[in-house]
Amino acid sequence: MAIKNGDFIKLEFTATVKETKDVFDTTNGEVAKEAGIEVENREYSPIPIVVGGNHLLKAIDEAVIGMDVGDSKNIEISPEDGFGERDSNLIQLISMKEFKKQGMTPHVGMELTSEGQKGRVLTISGGRVKVDFNHDLAGKNLEYSIVISEIIADDEEKIKSMIQLHYSYPNMDLNKTEIKIDGDKVSIKLDEITRFDQKSYMDVTFARFRIAKDIWDNMDFEKVEFVDEFEKKVEEKPFEENKENEE
Amino acid sequence: MAIKNGDFIKLEFTATVKETKDVFDTTNGEVAKEAGIEVENREYSPIPIVVGGNHLLKAIDEAVIGMDVGDSKNIEISPEDGFGERDSNLIQLISMKEFKKQGMTPHVGMELTSEGQKGRVLTISGGRVKVDFNHDLAGKNLEYSIVISEIIADDEEKIKSMIQLHYSYPNMDLNKTEIKIDGDKVSIKLDEITRFDQKSYMDVTFARFRIAKDIWDNMDFEKVEFVDEFEKKVEEKPFEENKENEE
Repeated sequence: MAIKNGDFIKLEFTATVKETKDVFDTTNGEVAKEAGIEVENREYSPIPIVVGGNHLLKAIDEAVIGMDVGDSKNIEISPEDGFGERDSNLIQLISMKEFKKQGMTPHVGMELTSEGQKGRVLTISGGRVKVDFNHDLAGKNLEYSIVISEIIADDEEKIKSMIQLHYSYPNMDLNKTEIKIDGDKVSIKLDEITRFDQKSYMDVTFARFRIAKDIWDNMDFEKVEFVDEFEKKVEEKPFEENKENEE
Repeated sequence: MAIKNGDFIKLEFTATVKETKDVFDTTNGEVAKEAGIEVENREYSPIPIVVGGNHLLKAIDEAVIGMDVGDSKNIEISPEDGFGERDSNLIQLISMKEFKKQGMTPHVGMELTSEGQKGRVLTISGGRVKVDFNHDLAGKNLEYSIVISEIIADDEEKIKSMIQLHYSYPNMDLNKTEIKIDGDKVSIKLDEITRFDQKSYMDVTFARFRIAKDIWDNMDFEKVEFVDEFEKKVEEKPFEENKENEE
């Protein structure tokens, strides 16, 4: 069945800079290792997206329409549709004194952050340091080679795919997610291990909001609730009348 | 009605060291201010406890039994029933060299933490620093003056009192707590503002566990669930319909 907008799918991709063939992102662990961009603790597997959901570049949302499971495609993406053109205003000259004040000794290629913007030192000469605050991939033509690995039909699987996309916790088992559907409401109980997440409650809330939004934007539900249930342990019950469990 | 074990009550107290009359804890903001022990952001109001729940010293749990709303009492607590006797093994001599190694210059009265234990410098002489790792209140006779301000009868109010005891978040409004009771299950939706708590999810889980435990230990419920609900905003509907028309 051909993919259309709003479909929940999983896809594999490897993304390269067209000119240099440098791999900068991939869903394939072997490829990541080979390219030296492997990220620790990242689970390399097909990525779930909602088509048209802006989870990846818009050009990919458009490219997958009409494709089917097993189909593959190479997509060329211009800088404009990728990470933007290079902006010469984002290249700044900073005096060496400024660096010394902060106790920093700049060198070519050094990465730094100024006022929340990431930059990279291009050149140093005459007491001046040229720093480029453009995105590393700005001005680059990109190539994405994609393979459609799955079109998700089942509601529960769609919901789980959005959990996989927006929330991660080491050793979380997606199969331990309990999903209850009641009218226009989805009730989600995540694997209990996630209760020990050391991320802030607020960060978890943001992830949950993204999951909820993708569900109500693309499925027939209006409410999404996340439930943590605490239950009295059976060992504590010996004096109560719960013989049914004990026999 | 006389207070008995398992009752949910609120009480005011002021706790002093018997010998010195120094106030070291109180539920009264004015008293805290006067004693110079006011804690920023702490809300000074009667504290909710379950009688026999070990939320305060055991001697207080015992003292309130048989009391009634408005009753007051002065309780003397021996070191044994308070914060323990002083243990001379917890006074240690540490060489000045050790401090210097860590870049510390000790002075009498200085507080420090070593291997998770809080200590206080007692004396310094002959290159040796005497540090006392006993609890500040070890060996002290204590006096608690208490007033029973409320005996909580309503189930919802009992549950809210345990939330108040175990979980705090600035500007959280307990009146915005939604509590649903269904058979042996209590379902709690906290004020939505708590979703932005910057404490870790795990710390919030521990607080929730304590709330749940006090509920199932002292009320006729076996399950306690905490629910965060996300609901589609009505304003977002027209936008979505337009999107579909565009295709």
